[in-house]
Amino acid sequence: MNVHDLIRELKEPADTKIVLLVADGLGGLPMEPGGKTELESARTPNLDACAREGACGLSMPVLPGITPGSGPGHLGLFGYDPLQFRIGRGILEALGINFHVGPKDVAARGNFCTVDGQGLITDRRAGRPATERCVAMCRKLQEIRLEGVQVFVEPVREHRFVVVFRGENLGEAVNDTDPQQTGLHALEAAGRDGPSQNTARAANRFIAEAARLLKSEAPTNMVTLRGFARHPNIETMQEVYGLKPVALAVYPMYKGLARLVGMEVVDAGSTLTDQVETLRKLWNQYDFFFLHFKYTDSTGEDGNFAAKVEMIERLDNEIPKIRALGPDVLIVTGDHSTPSKLRSHSWHTVPTLLLAKTCRPDPVTEFGESYCLKGGLGQIPAMHLMTLALAHAGRLGKYGA
Amino acid sequence: MNVHDLIRELKEPADTKIVLLVADGLGGLPMEPGGKTELESARTPNLDACAREGACGLSMPVLPGITPGSGPGHLGLFGYDPLQFRIGRGILEALGINFHVGPKDVAARGNFCTVDGQGLITDRRAGRPATERCVAMCRKLQEIRLEGVQVFVEPVREHRFVVVFRGENLGEAVNDTDPQQTGLHALEAAGRDGPSQNTARAANRFIAEAARLLKSEAPTNMVTLRGFARHPNIETMQEVYGLKPVALAVYPMYKGLARLVGMEVVDAGSTLTDQVETLRKLWNQYDFFFLHFKYTDSTGEDGNFAAKVEMIERLDNEIPKIRALGPDVLIVTGDHSTPSKLRSHSWHTVPTLLLAKTCRPDPVTEFGESYCLKGGLGQIPAMHLMTLALAHAGRLGKYGA
Repeated sequence: MNVHDLIRELKEPADTKIVLLVADGLGGLPMEPGGKTELESARTPNLDACAREGACGLSMPVLPGITPGSGPGHLGLFGYDPLQFRIGRGILEALGINFHVGPKDVAARGNFCTVDGQGLITDRRAGRPATERCVAMCRKLQEIRLEGVQVFVEPVREHRFVVVFRGENLGEAVNDTDPQQTGLHALEAAGRDGPSQNTARAANRFIAEAARLLKSEAPTNMVTLRGFARHPNIETMQEVYGLKPVALAVYPMYKGLARLVGMEVVDAGSTLTDQVETLRKLWNQYDFFFLHFKYTDSTGEDGNFAAKVEMIERLDNEIPKIRALGPDVLIVTGDHSTPSKLRSHSWHTVPTLLLAKTCRPDPVTEFGESYCLKGGLGQIPAMHLMTLALAHAGRLGKYGA
Repeated sequence: MNVHDLIRELKEPADTKIVLLVADGLGGLPMEPGGKTELESARTPNLDACAREGACGLSMPVLPGITPGSGPGHLGLFGYDPLQFRIGRGILEALGINFHVGPKDVAARGNFCTVDGQGLITDRRAGRPATERCVAMCRKLQEIRLEGVQVFVEPVREHRFVVVFRGENLGEAVNDTDPQQTGLHALEAAGRDGPSQNTARAANRFIAEAARLLKSEAPTNMVTLRGFARHPNIETMQEVYGLKPVALAVYPMYKGLARLVGMEVVDAGSTLTDQVETLRKLWNQYDFFFLHFKYTDSTGEDGNFAAKVEMIERLDNEIPKIRALGPDVLIVTGDHSTPSKLRSHSWHTVPTLLLAKTCRPDPVTEFGESYCLKGGLGQIPAMHLMTLALAHAGRLGKYGA
C-alpha cells in the first residue's frame, strides 16, 4: 500500500492550518574544513526559537546520494513519491506561466540561442536577452502554423519560452535539441516511438520555421527545445489530503509545481515580505499554505556564501509574522541542498523543522545542519513530512482498530 | 523504480577514484556490560582521523535483525539489493577458485568428512586435512563419470572443494546433504522440481561413487554437498555504475563475489600490506577498488576479542598508505558485524565511514560503534553506500528538472 492510499483512508477534516515554508536549496556545506554551513553561520533567532519549541531533523529528498531537481524536490515536500511521479521540464514551465496543458498536449521548454553563419551555436542563451525581447520574439514565433498540429508559443523570461504542441497521438519520448555546448549545430528531434515521432516531426518543422523567422534577429536568431513532456496523471492535494491548498510563490516553476498537485496559485507579489503579507490576507480562505523562497538556492548556485547567509537572515526576519497568524503546523525546510561550495544542487540532506503544539521535545536549540542531526525527526524521506504535518494538524485518524 | 535503474540513468563519467575497504565482520559488542567493542578498544589514530574529516554512520546490511552471510553482506556493499539478488554458496565457491560457471551448470560446495563403519559421520570436516590432501582426494574424485551429466571437481582448501554438474535441464532446488551434526548418515539429495530432481540424481550418484573411491582414505573417506546453485543473472558494476572495478581480496569467496558483479580479480598477495601495495601499483588502471580484509571476521568467529582488536589495529596501520594515493572517496565498513562475544556473524549495524572532500561535517571524532551513532550518515541500508560513493565522486547527475 502506498502512503497516499493510506492517507486517503485515514484523513479527517479539521479546522487547522498548515504552513510549508520552503527555502529553496536551504542545506549547505562549510567552505573550509572545520567551518560552518550557511545556515549555521546565519543569525536566525526566530528560526532558532522554532527549533527549540518544535522538532528538527534532516530530510532526504529522494534517496541517499541522489541530487534532485526542483521538480522531484518539491513533489517530495508535497508528499508525493518523487520516484513514482516524474514531471518533465516542459510541463513545469508551461504550468508556471499558467498555460493550461491538456490531454492532447506535449510541452517543451524553449531557449533562444545565437548561431553563426554556419548555424553553429555560439551562445546557448542568446546573451540572456531582456524579457521584452523574449516577448517580441515569441510574437514572431506565434505566426508559425504546422499541418495537423496546433502550436502555442509563450514567453517565460529572458531567453526562455514554452512551446506546446497540441494534436492527436503525440508522444513525449523526444530528445532535447540543445547540444549542451557551443560550437555545435542544434540537434534534430527524434522520437523513440510512433507517437513521439509525430511530436519530433512537428518540433523539427517548428524549429525550421523559427530559424527562418528569426534569421535577421541575432543574437536571438535560433531556438532549441528540451524537456518534451505530457501532463502527468497526478492526484491533487484536495483528493488525497482533504486540504484546500494555496501557493504563494514568485517564480514560474514553483507555481507550476503547486498547480500540478492541485494548489490554487495566487499573485503573491515579488518579495518574501509580499508573500507573507499575502499569506496574512488569505489566512481564512485556505488551510494549507506553500510559501516558496527562491534566493537561498540562487545565491548558493552563484557560490555566494555570504549572500546565501543574508537570504537566510532575511527569511528568519519574516518568521514572527508567520507565527503571529497561529498556524497549527509550521514546517521550514528546503527542497534540496545547494551548498555555495558546490555552486549546484546536491544530494546532502536538508535541515528541517516542524513546529506544532504536539511536538515531542528534542535537544535541538538552533536551526542548522549539525544541530538537526540530533533532532527528533531523525533523517527522514521528505515525502513523509506531509504525513507528519497532517498528523500534527489533527487531520489523520487511527490506522486499524 | 529501483535504485540501479535510477543510477543507470543518472551516471556520468568522471576521472575520480573510489576505494571500498571492507573489514569483514567489523562491528562488535563489548564482552561485559559497560565495556567497549573491539573497534572502540583498538588504537586507531588513522581511522579516527578519517572519521573526523569525513562522515560516519552505521550501515544495515539487509534489514533490522537480519544476520547476513558473506554473500548478501557484500552484495549490499556493492550496491545490490541483497533481498533481490540471491547467490548460492556453490556459485560463490566456484567463482572463488576461478571456475567459469556456465548457463548449464549447477555448482555445489563439497566437504570431505569422516564416516565410521556404519556410514555415520564422525567428523563433518574430516579433521581439517591439509590442502595438499584435499587436492589429492579431488584428483580421485575427478575420475567419476556420470551418464548424461558432466562433473567437475576442484579443490578449494582443507576439507573444502567444489563440484559442478553440467548438463541439460539441471535445477538448483536441491537440499544440502550435510546433516549439520555428527552421529548421523549424510542425507540423500532430493530435488523440489523436475530439473532439480535431475541434479539430485546426479549428486547422489556422485556421492555414491565418491564413497566407493574414498573407502580406504579415512579420515577423508566421505563427502557432503551443499549450496546447490546456478549462476545468477546479475548486472555488472560497469553496466550500472560506469565504473572500472577491481577486487583485491585474498580469500576465494570474496574474489568470487567480486567477479560476480563484474569486477576484475587480480592476485593481490596474501596480506593486507600486499593488497595495499597492489592497490598502489594498479592505481591508474581502475577507478573502483574493493579491498577485503578477512581477519576481523575470523578472529571474531573464534571469539578472540584481543585478536580482533589487533587485526583492527593492523588495518588502521595501512590507512595512511591508502590515503596517500588520494582517493576521491574512501569508504571503510564491514559486510556485517561479528562480535567476539557471539562468535558468529550478527545482525548488528556496522560502523561505517565515508571520506571525501564533499562530506558535511558531523560530530564524530573517533571511529567506533557508539561514535558512529552520532554520525551524519545516520543508520543507512548498506546498499545506499554505493550511491553516496558515486555522488561524492561526482559521478551522478541531477534527478529531474
